[in-house]
Amino acid sequence: MRPNNRLSIIFFVVLTLALTATIAGAQDPLPSWNDTSSKKAITAFVNKVTKEGSPDFVPIAERIATFDNDGTLWAEQPMYFQLIFALDRVKALASNHPEWKEIEPFASLLKGDIKGVLAGGEKSIAEIMMVTHAGMTSEEFEQIVTDWVGTARHPKTKKLYTEMVYQPMLELLAYLRAKGFKTFIVSGGGVEFMRPWAEKVYGIPPEQVIGSSIKTKFDLRDGKPVLVRLPEINFVDDGPGKPVGIQMQIGRRPIASFGNSDGDLQMLQWTNTGSGPRFGLLVHHTDAEREWVYDRKSPIGKLDKALDQAQAKGWTVVDMKRDWKLIYPFKKR
Amino acid sequence: MRPNNRLSIIFFVVLTLALTATIAGAQDPLPSWNDTSSKKAITAFVNKVTKEGSPDFVPIAERIATFDNDGTLWAEQPMYFQLIFALDRVKALASNHPEWKEIEPFASLLKGDIKGVLAGGEKSIAEIMMVTHAGMTSEEFEQIVTDWVGTARHPKTKKLYTEMVYQPMLELLAYLRAKGFKTFIVSGGGVEFMRPWAEKVYGIPPEQVIGSSIKTKFDLRDGKPVLVRLPEINFVDDGPGKPVGIQMQIGRRPIASFGNSDGDLQMLQWTNTGSGPRFGLLVHHTDAEREWVYDRKSPIGKLDKALDQAQAKGWTVVDMKRDWKLIYPFKKR
Repeated sequence: MRPNNRLSIIFFVVLTLALTATIAGAQDPLPSWNDTSSKKAITAFVNKVTKEGSPDFVPIAERIATFDNDGTLWAEQPMYFQLIFALDRVKALASNHPEWKEIEPFASLLKGDIKGVLAGGEKSIAEIMMVTHAGMTSEEFEQIVTDWVGTARHPKTKKLYTEMVYQPMLELLAYLRAKGFKTFIVSGGGVEFMRPWAEKVYGIPPEQVIGSSIKTKFDLRDGKPVLVRLPEINFVDDGPGKPVGIQMQIGRRPIASFGNSDGDLQMLQWTNTGSGPRFGLLVHHTDAEREWVYDRKSPIGKLDKALDQAQAKGWTVVDMKRDWKLIYPFKKR
Repeated sequence: MRPNNRLSIIFFVVLTLALTATIAGAQDPLPSWNDTSSKKAITAFVNKVTKEGSPDFVPIAERIATFDNDGTLWAEQPMYFQLIFALDRVKALASNHPEWKEIEPFASLLKGDIKGVLAGGEKSIAEIMMVTHAGMTSEEFEQIVTDWVGTARHPKTKKLYTEMVYQPMLELLAYLRAKGFKTFIVSGGGVEFMRPWAEKVYGIPPEQVIGSSIKTKFDLRDGKPVLVRLPEINFVDDGPGKPVGIQMQIGRRPIASFGNSDGDLQMLQWTNTGSGPRFGLLVHHTDAEREWVYDRKSPIGKLDKALDQAQAKGWTVVDMKRDWKLIYPFKKR
C-alpha cells in the first residue's frame, strides 16, 4: 500500500469513528447513565408526555420539573455546603468580632471544634446562619457568595464545590429542557446562596430558583435604593414547605420532581397526585467509593420515609452505584 | 376595458392594499399608540438594548420587564376589581352565614351600602378579604376565580373584567417578548387572583406573576395532598414590597418597569438605579371620556409622589388621552 493510501484509510477510519461517536451522542442524551431501569423510566416518561397525539401528551407550558439541590444536583457531605460557607464566613469575620472568642457557638467554631458547634443544636446553627447571611445588602451578599464559590475547596476532594455536581443530573436537566420542560430548583438551601451560580452551573436562571429565605427590606442609602437582608426567617423551603414554595413561586403543579431525602417527600407527593402522567425520582446515595453511602440514619440528607413511599408508589429510585457511569464531571476523561 | 381586465385590476388593487396593510402592521408593533413622545421613548429604548454590538446591548437573560396590573394593564375604577370580586363573594356566601346580617362590615355590604363598608377602613376590607380568600384549597380558589372572571360584569361598561385590559399595553407586552424580554406582573393584587387568567389574557404564565399572598399550608385530606389557604397575610407586594417581591421571585433587577401609581414608585426606583440602560413608565389616567381621570387625590391608584419623581428622573409618563388611539380591545372595529 502506498503511504498516501494508508493515510487516506487512517483518515477515513478516524472520521468514521468520530461520526459514529457523534451520532451515538446525539442518540443518547443521557450518556452518563447506565442502561438500567432508572434511565429507562426517565426516557419512557419523557417520550410519553412529549409525543403529540398521545393520550399522555402534556403541553409545553405545563412541563414543569422541580429539582432539589443538596444531594440531588450536587453533593452534601460531610455537611451541607452552605453550612461550610457559613463556618468559613465566621472565620473571615472573626477579626471584626473579638467578642466571639468568648461566646458559643463562635468560640468552638474558631477553635476548629465543629462537634462543639453542633452540640448547640439548631439554635447554634441559626445564630451562625444569621450573622453570616444577614446585615448586608442583597448585592453585597451575592458578591460574597460568588467569591466563596470561586475559591473555597471541598475538604475531601479539594475541588470547588460547584465542581461537585452530578454529571448524570446535568445531562438530565439538559435533556428535559431540550424536550420543552422548564426546570426549577426547589431547595431547603438559601435562595440567594444558590442564585449567583445556578445559571452558570445548571443552566437554571435566578427566577427558576426557589429556596429558603430571610426577610429583606427596601431602603434608601444616600438616596440609592438597596435591599437589606434582615436576621429573620422569611420562609423555610423544606418538607411540607416545598409544595408551598412551588405554589407561591410557580403557581402550577410540577409533572416531575427529583429529590434525595425526606425533605423532598411532600414535593414528590404533591407532584405525583396531580392528574395525568407524573414522575417522581429519588437519588439513593449507594456509592462509598465514588461518593458517599447514606440513607435512613444520616443526619444530613436522611432518606427513610420517602424511600418507603417511593417503593409503595412506584417512584424511580436511582441506585447511584449501579445507575451512574460517572458521578462528577471532573472525573471525565 | 374588458370586464376581465377590470376584474384583474380590482384584484390587483385589493391585493396591493392588503399587502401594504400587512407590511405596515409588521413595521409597527404598537399600532394602538399614537406617534407621540411616549411611543418614541419605548421603541428607542428597545432598539438600543437589543442592538448587538451597541454599548447599551443587554443579553436576553437580563431583559426583565415588570408590570403593575391594576391601572397599568387593566382598569381599576370605580374600585379594584379584586375588591368587587370579594364583595360578590360575600353575597354568594351569605346564605351560609346568617350571622353576617348582624355584624359589620357584612351587614352594610349585604344591604348594598358600600360607603358603610368602606367606613370601617382597612380593617373592614381585610375582614372581607379573609372570609372570601381563605379557608379553601388553592385549587378550589382557582376555580372560584375562574368562574367569577368568566361571568361577572363591570358596573359601568357591562363588559367582563378581563375585557377591560388596555390594548396598547397588550401590544407593548407582545412587542417586548418578541424582542427577547421576559415579562412579569408585579402587583399589589393577590397572586392567586391573577394567575388563573393572566396567561390567557396577557400571555404571562403563572410563574411570572408576583403579587400579594396569604399563607398556605400543606395538608393531607384523606391521604390526598392539598394546599390550604389560611386567613393570615404572607406578603404585601405593594410600594416598598415590590422590589422585595421582585428580588424574592426573580432574583434579578428589571431593566424596565411599568406602573401607574405611588404603589409602583419603589419598583421604578429600584429598576432605574441599576447600572446600564433602564426604562421607567407611568400610565397617567387622563381620559374622562374613554376611561377615567384621576391622579394626586384618588383613593384608588393615587399618583402623586411617583408623578413628581417621573418628572425629576425623566421616566416616561403616558398621557392616556393623547398617547393611546384605543383603550380597550372591545372598541376595536
